[in-house]
Amino acid sequence: MKLSVKEYKLSAGRPIAIINKDIAHKLLVGVNDRISIRYNSKRIIAVVDLSSEIVNKNNIVLSSEITDYLGVKPHNEVLIEVANQSRSKAIITKKLRCEVLSEKEIFDVINSIVNNELSESEIAFFISSIYECGMSMNEIYWLTKAMFNTGNKLNLKSRKIVDKHSIGGIAGNRTTPIVVSICAATGLTFPKTSSRAITSAAGTADVMEAVCRVNFNVKELERIIKKTNACLAWGGTLGFAPADDKIIRVESQINIDPEPNLLASIMAKKLSVGSKYILIDIPYGKYAKVDKKGALKLKKKFEYLGKRFNLKLKAVITRGDEPIGNGVGPILELRDIMNVLKNDGPEELRDKCLYLSGEILELCGKSKKGQGHKLAERILISGKALEKFREIVEAQGGNAKNLDNLKLAKFSHTIFSDKNSKIKLIDNKKINLLARVAGSPDDKKAGVFIYRHINDKVKKGDSIITIYSQSKNKLKDAIDFYKENKIITLY
Amino acid sequence: MKLSVKEYKLSAGRPIAIINKDIAHKLLVGVNDRISIRYNSKRIIAVVDLSSEIVNKNNIVLSSEITDYLGVKPHNEVLIEVANQSRSKAIITKKLRCEVLSEKEIFDVINSIVNNELSESEIAFFISSIYECGMSMNEIYWLTKAMFNTGNKLNLKSRKIVDKHSIGGIAGNRTTPIVVSICAATGLTFPKTSSRAITSAAGTADVMEAVCRVNFNVKELERIIKKTNACLAWGGTLGFAPADDKIIRVESQINIDPEPNLLASIMAKKLSVGSKYILIDIPYGKYAKVDKKGALKLKKKFEYLGKRFNLKLKAVITRGDEPIGNGVGPILELRDIMNVLKNDGPEELRDKCLYLSGEILELCGKSKKGQGHKLAERILISGKALEKFREIVEAQGGNAKNLDNLKLAKFSHTIFSDKNSKIKLIDNKKINLLARVAGSPDDKKAGVFIYRHINDKVKKGDSIITIYSQSKNKLKDAIDFYKENKIITLY
Repeated sequence: MKLSVKEYKLSAGRPIAIINKDIAHKLLVGVNDRISIRYNSKRIIAVVDLSSEIVNKNNIVLSSEITDYLGVKPHNEVLIEVANQSRSKAIITKKLRCEVLSEKEIFDVINSIVNNELSESEIAFFISSIYECGMSMNEIYWLTKAMFNTGNKLNLKSRKIVDKHSIGGIAGNRTTPIVVSICAATGLTFPKTSSRAITSAAGTADVMEAVCRVNFNVKELERIIKKTNACLAWGGTLGFAPADDKIIRVESQINIDPEPNLLASIMAKKLSVGSKYILIDIPYGKYAKVDKKGALKLKKKFEYLGKRFNLKLKAVITRGDEPIGNGVGPILELRDIMNVLKNDGPEELRDKCLYLSGEILELCGKSKKGQGHKLAERILISGKALEKFREIVEAQGGNAKNLDNLKLAKFSHTIFSDKNSKIKLIDNKKINLLARVAGSPDDKKAGVFIYRHINDKVKKGDSIITIYSQSKNKLKDAIDFYKENKIITLY
Repeated sequence: MKLSVKEYKLSAGRPIAIINKDIAHKLLVGVNDRISIRYNSKRIIAVVDLSSEIVNKNNIVLSSEITDYLGVKPHNEVLIEVANQSRSKAIITKKLRCEVLSEKEIFDVINSIVNNELSESEIAFFISSIYECGMSMNEIYWLTKAMFNTGNKLNLKSRKIVDKHSIGGIAGNRTTPIVVSICAATGLTFPKTSSRAITSAAGTADVMEAVCRVNFNVKELERIIKKTNACLAWGGTLGFAPADDKIIRVESQINIDPEPNLLASIMAKKLSVGSKYILIDIPYGKYAKVDKKGALKLKKKFEYLGKRFNLKLKAVITRGDEPIGNGVGPILELRDIMNVLKNDGPEELRDKCLYLSGEILELCGKSKKGQGHKLAERILISGKALEKFREIVEAQGGNAKNLDNLKLAKFSHTIFSDKNSKIKLIDNKKINLLARVAGSPDDKKAGVFIYRHINDKVKKGDSIITIYSQSKNKLKDAIDFYKENKIITLY
């Protein structure tokens, strides 16, 4: 059946088609059923909404997720058919019974996710099945492969493409922009794509967005990398491992992230940018995602996948007991980054960046074994990393001058120590939440400045943290949140 | 924030609110986030869609799921707020870790489902957690209680309210209309609500819909029952255990039905109509939902729940190796029902109905132990059950005269035996699928007529089945489906 597209500009977060009730009756579909919509050679599966007012029997309203994908304009005609039941459903129920899936079965599920043949609930069942039953290393390898093969790929000529990934969760752990700048300054190609925060205060993409664009398509990104050797972009608009983007959106609803998905997600995205040299940073500790034992297990799994994909991959485990740096929140973290790049930043952030950069430089042969750290430090001190960072910001449409003038939020409140003591614990997860309550990451200036770290002495009246926000109400909420929770514990 | 409701008549299958992008920005919500919408004293949680064309900064489009619930009219003002994160998410992740939930935790999740605070994906995670981890009998009791307490209830004065339920899956097993008619003819109150087919060829509601209305609200249903002692309605519009309706919708996407949900679903609906005498029929066999061992286990669980809710509940296990009756599909099953009521129907359907009716009559003391079957048979032979059935159809807005003139579908095709043999197996599940391919249950006349049962002799040239459909194409698809699958096996 052919229907004419009616203009509506509707963003629904998923492909939605609003059709007339009589048409639905004719097609024998109801609300929540799926139809296939074809335009020229492209096809997408959409979920049906019904209306007898918005549309008549000759037209159809499509959400922007569909019009963008198909490239249809108002008054174009699209071909509507009832979508077949996806074969993937049976595969998902198989995995729910904890059976092992084959390479083809995993590919079919991932491919159906990419083609919108599965609803978010069906994806939730798939995630649950992996969460409850786990996956063999073979299955994880196939999952990675399927995610990678169903997505876009960067096409870079360079032979030395490097990449890094830090398992998230540690507040203020904003090493990426610094590590990318140091490594790219040595001539390495570093096409770094990052996520936005899901539960933490800010992701690298949220931080970069405070000074430049982060949403590019593949062609634009290739141009930026050609210019600067590097980028610091958001992965969300690039279509690398698009199945993973959808899976993460469903996972984030309930805050679970099964290990096989975490592994496949990270690996598929590294493969998509074509990197051959990869460093994985796995922080462990009381408030990190994993403890030391878990970190070592995860390290082995990453290294196994690295081998199967013929990569030079190294996974390092690092301590993640407390926030790194002073700032938590986009602008506050950017200030830390600029301070480190200007050789005047928080020491533990500088140290971690030099360590990670050194490992990468050694991994790809830019420096001899044991000499990476020194080379990284030389580049940082020389100012070349700072220069590279400014270059990237400019290439991504920002004004590098703004980096020297990062203004703090309008409202702030400082918490002081009420005794002479020492810092005992800093709850990473709650620091993240505190920054979020203050408005981070949407409010770029919102966040928390932490003056002291674990085992630092404090005197009565010393500042412990300052909370920043552009909103008076949110600042108040954040102060209440601080008072109601044990976020920083003194001895 | 107050917004004016714009008329759109949009059915989205879930509560959707379309708001302007600038408003969303102001509220700091994005696509797929949830907002609360208040009108007078009622409140509902809706999922956000964005548009800058459909709505301006002063108005909002609400899907019919919301307008119906709130009772708002176009141009009414509703109050919009950002919805808090539901506490239930943490409870669901707890169950995903296979921990035991408390009564309060289970109530909170069920209550959030009813209030639309959880997305379908979150409900899918909850279902998965139960599927993978199971539930203790205490948890199942609390689940039932929560489902029941968050729903509507029938208010009947009668003291002898009876009910029955057959675990589904057996093709043509349409005992309900006959059992209800026999029992109601003895003066018992039998407020029967049924489901529509999810995977089978037809549910009782689909069958009844071929001759009368089945969608009523609670007040209408009470009136019908007052008039006739009984009803044969669809449960979907009544709001009994509404959490269960939503859970079933999500379950049906992937065809799983964890046992705790099955138990709670059935029990909560029986409690909602106020019945004190309940018969549960559990068919077992090769193509049934459970084998004999499973049926006995399930029987015990039903009886446990019956005790905890102070009911007179009996669960019987019955053989379900093959379809019961000849017809599969709404009109074809109705013809079987009419034939039994006229004392001229398929014997095994008649036998099963008399058995179940007899059990109910004994359970509530209408007849002495061991005399129920006889009483049921007497009523059937007397024609009183037929009369009662006609009465119910008329009370539900149908024309009882149509029952004597049930026309078959326009197109049909008969499969004949190619040898002298005996029937070895009839695949229940595939018979259901075959009827669905032919168009059942939406095409009321579509379905299958089965001439012979297991161990019946067939001669070469004898009819085995006839497939009916109103659509030539679907008939062709069904014939192909029959040829490609082993549906009826001869020795």
